Amino acid sequence: MIQKMPASSKNKEKIYVSPWRQKIYEVIFEADTKAGKAFDVLLLVFIVFSFILVLFESINSIEKEYSTGIKIAEWIMTILFTFEYIARIVSVNRPLKYIFSFFGIIDLVSILPAYLGLFMQGTQYLMTVRIFRLLRVFRIFKMIQFIREADVLIMALKASGYKILVFLIFILSFTAMNGTIMYIVEGEENGFTNIPISMYWAIVTLTTVGYGDIAPKTPMGQFLSSIIMLSGYAILAVPTGIVSVELGLASKESITTQTCPSCLKEGHDHDAIYCKYCGEEINPELDETG
Amino acid sequence: MIQKMPASSKNKEKIYVSPWRQKIYEVIFEADTKAGKAFDVLLLVFIVFSFILVLFESINSIEKEYSTGIKIAEWIMTILFTFEYIARIVSVNRPLKYIFSFFGIIDLVSILPAYLGLFMQGTQYLMTVRIFRLLRVFRIFKMIQFIREADVLIMALKASGYKILVFLIFILSFTAMNGTIMYIVEGEENGFTNIPISMYWAIVTLTTVGYGDIAPKTPMGQFLSSIIMLSGYAILAVPTGIVSVELGLASKESITTQTCPSCLKEGHDHDAIYCKYCGEEINPELDETG
Amino acid sequence: MIQKMPASSKNKEKIYVSPWRQKIYEVIFEADTKAGKAFDVLLLVFIVFSFILVLFESINSIEKEYSTGIKIAEWIMTILFTFEYIARIVSVNRPLKYIFSFFGIIDLVSILPAYLGLFMQGTQYLMTVRIFRLLRVFRIFKMIQFIREADVLIMALKASGYKILVFLIFILSFTAMNGTIMYIVEGEENGFTNIPISMYWAIVTLTTVGYGDIAPKTPMGQFLSSIIMLSGYAILAVPTGIVSVELGLASKESITTQTCPSCLKEGHDHDAIYCKYCGEEINPELDETG
Amino acid sequence: MIQKMPASSKNKEKIYVSPWRQKIYEVIFEADTKAGKAFDVLLLVFIVFSFILVLFESINSIEKEYSTGIKIAEWIMTILFTFEYIARIVSVNRPLKYIFSFFGIIDLVSILPAYLGLFMQGTQYLMTVRIFRLLRVFRIFKMIQFIREADVLIMALKASGYKILVFLIFILSFTAMNGTIMYIVEGEENGFTNIPISMYWAIVTLTTVGYGDIAPKTPMGQFLSSIIMLSGYAILAVPTGIVSVELGLASKESITTQTCPSCLKEGHDHDAIYCKYCGEEINPELDETG
Repeated sequence: MIQKMPASSKNKEKIYVSPWRQKIYEVIFEADTKAGKAFDVLLLVFIVFSFILVLFESINSIEKEYSTGIKIAEWIMTILFTFEYIARIVSVNRPLKYIFSFFGIIDLVSILPAYLGLFMQGTQYLMTVRIFRLLRVFRIFKMIQFIREADVLIMALKASGYKILVFLIFILSFTAMNGTIMYIVEGEENGFTNIPISMYWAIVTLTTVGYGDIAPKTPMGQFLSSIIMLSGYAILAVPTGIVSVELGLASKESITTQTCPSCLKEGHDHDAIYCKYCGEEINPELDETG
Repeated sequence: MIQKMPASSKNKEKIYVSPWRQKIYEVIFEADTKAGKAFDVLLLVFIVFSFILVLFESINSIEKEYSTGIKIAEWIMTILFTFEYIARIVSVNRPLKYIFSFFGIIDLVSILPAYLGLFMQGTQYLMTVRIFRLLRVFRIFKMIQFIREADVLIMALKASGYKILVFLIFILSFTAMNGTIMYIVEGEENGFTNIPISMYWAIVTLTTVGYGDIAPKTPMGQFLSSIIMLSGYAILAVPTGIVSVELGLASKESITTQTCPSCLKEGHDHDAIYCKYCGEEINPELDETG
Repeated sequence: MIQKMPASSKNKEKIYVSPWRQKIYEVIFEADTKAGKAFDVLLLVFIVFSFILVLFESINSIEKEYSTGIKIAEWIMTILFTFEYIARIVSVNRPLKYIFSFFGIIDLVSILPAYLGLFMQGTQYLMTVRIFRLLRVFRIFKMIQFIREADVLIMALKASGYKILVFLIFILSFTAMNGTIMYIVEGEENGFTNIPISMYWAIVTLTTVGYGDIAPKTPMGQFLSSIIMLSGYAILAVPTGIVSVELGLASKESITTQTCPSCLKEGHDHDAIYCKYCGEEINPELDETG
Repeated sequence: MIQKMPASSKNKEKIYVSPWRQKIYEVIFEADTKAGKAFDVLLLVFIVFSFILVLFESINSIEKEYSTGIKIAEWIMTILFTFEYIARIVSVNRPLKYIFSFFGIIDLVSILPAYLGLFMQGTQYLMTVRIFRLLRVFRIFKMIQFIREADVLIMALKASGYKILVFLIFILSFTAMNGTIMYIVEGEENGFTNIPISMYWAIVTLTTVGYGDIAPKTPMGQFLSSIIMLSGYAILAVPTGIVSVELGLASKESITTQTCPSCLKEGHDHDAIYCKYCGEEINPELDETG
């Protein structure tokens, strides 16, 4: 009557769970069985539907006419998601690990705004964060491929992360300097009302967004902002270059791992069975998985 | 009296076609003969001419004066293109393969709007899609070179495609979150009328387009959108980096042309001496040249 | 009395020129002698001065007051540049080759607008093109370094050129399609007056410039343009990636050329004297130049 | 009673300093001791606090109410920073080297505007430059890592610097040409008042900032600026590509750490077995590890 859960295969000590908990686990967390796949597809539909409901609620003309309908539908969705969240906690082997995982937090944050909305007007709109849950449903199709790709990306971002932080502090300083200069040059009469607003303008300019709500009007200000734009142009190249290089390294590293047992050379592709330098067999068991 | 078509050389079974069909095929589909080249150049001119006609038709001042002339010229073009389309179907060996190929669809879509325009006002403007046909006329000069370059590009995009999809879903979620926050912070009185419009603003900002039709006005909104812009800056680097890396890999991979003489598999590196799949020696003379 | 010109050292047959022509040649075309260096610096100053004069002429308030002074100074500059141009033609060994070279054309185009301005009002402003002549003065310092860098750049751009052309035709088609759709969706009342203007809007959007002079106002138009912006985001990555890859290849090619005479391996750096794989001497004469 | 300073360990001749000078040095310049760490954290807090003060001073509504308080706090900060600056000069071994170093200049520039503000209204806002001092506090955590990353970045920027300069001169010329053409085509009535403003517009367009304060209104101007935007698109790819390639090279080069035991030269590749300069074996055990 008692079985071990599939997910616990990695744990050395075998954990015994009641069969209905395992059933729930299989349906909610896995996509191998028919019920699991159906659940995932249904969840996908519910997430999108619930997201559209919030969009509709924020549109005045729609909200006025269908106010009650939308509210009811939203609460049904919220209650369903709440049950799902509880079911996940109950069925999973290590509840705390799930609760503090990326998707665990997303799941919680998806239902909280609805309850918060009862006390604070406006917060229920934050339910749009539910759309992040879409990222999970990727496991319906090609999960392994996805995880590998994401790993490459995350590896590259982590490797670049520190450099990007240094870069952001530099940008902040550069923005503060330029914002101050423009505040002095252009002054309040041209829209550069204070230094924070001037810094906002500097960021709008450096990132090449350029709303145009604030724009230099004096020749000196236009000359200076031309220089800022051109340096922004050069600065823009740096993070792009950093990420490109890191992505290149990460994708390279994710490919070459094994060494030829005969000539000891590296640099073989993932799907290589024989060493390309000496012809020796490298990784026999790759035949099936590769 | 019966000849085999040049294009069918790859098919194992030889197909016999009547000579006039082959003649049409040579003129329309190939650019080796004088007639074929002349046809391609004429087609190029007609496509550009027909495109300009539609542009003119949409300009009020021109349309009012030359309405009849433009209409007649447009219909002549459409009828010519229709005949060409029929001729292509008739002369080609496998009509269905052509009809559902990229250029087959473009050819059909180029003539449909004119006929649709008889029933639905405005749809005839979609004839501008004809300009896509220009891509085909590249075969007049350096066709092979073009196809190889395009292959590298398509290979790189396909390899990146999945990552870009994940990326787009992330962007959508990020946009939804930011749009909602800005809708709450700025509110309807500052142009953030509802969440869909706030999301539109978030996309305009993240992609650094920055029209300025909607722009944050409260200090809090300006501070938040500064952070959004800077993260957009960092996020922008990711797809560029991905495509750069993939393009680099694709162009590297596209260099390898040899096939293993034993297992007939492709995809070997430049410096490979032994086939990485079966261990057979691929290219003995590579030992010296490296 | 008759000497051979330094620049003709590459020509197999020696050409004899009169000494004063050689003198002019040395001063104008070379930067090794004191006179040659002084000439180059003076030319740099004159180009910048002449450029600023044209800027001043276009500013109403300045032009009104100093009209005569600016005119006289401009004509002095023009006459000096004309004499210089004639001196270049006279002193150079192969006048036609110079005239049709990049800098020969720039030199001519720099003086033409002033004379054209006598007949056609406004064309004299085109004298600003003189600023391109600044690119030449780079030979005062580190000419060889500059030429090598430029070669890498030009090599990379040439290698990418064809792909970028294909890319531009695709952009044109994409723009035409989106412009047409937006013209139909938004219509004349929202600023999308005709298809050419809609295409202008599509280019402003795709390139992320986003003036905001024309912006979608209907929800449908805003939704469609969001998609256009996001695809522009993805499309933007392609040319950047292409140029990155080509620059990488070009700079790589400009580095690795020699092969080790002992183990025949490649991939040595420019400054390598010994093979890094077997320790054999690669390129003995590199000791001095490297 | 007399000790040598830790920082002088690299100098061959030992320098003797009084113990209190060394104490100050340890606290201010180093982060190993408890006092040194506390000082660095306090400095970080003071810099941010002082920066926020200047922001507040520039906001009218805040300045009016808390004018005296802000002024007093600002002067306390300035005097503290002045003492710190003097302490740095006094305690450091080579004062001139510190004064003209990057951080020495930043430190001086951070306090000057406050004193200048006594004579010239408005210059005290330049105190925002203090935020650059934040870059120093990075040594509290992971200093070595930071320095290495920064070195890679600076190496890459230096290697690209020259190319970027050429690129900027080209951009200036391109901008001048386009600005002039648009000035002639659009004219003063459409906002292109003079050539400098037209050049400002050209830079705003090329860098894809696109404020929209000036935008082409004639069909010809819109057509020309579409071409400028698309070329800006292509041109944008160049500096990004350059920096990507250089960053790639720099990060590759930065991996090599070993020095040749014979000629003591650095800069060997990862896979080098023999020194490429003198032919000596560098790292025998590399044979196995590759």
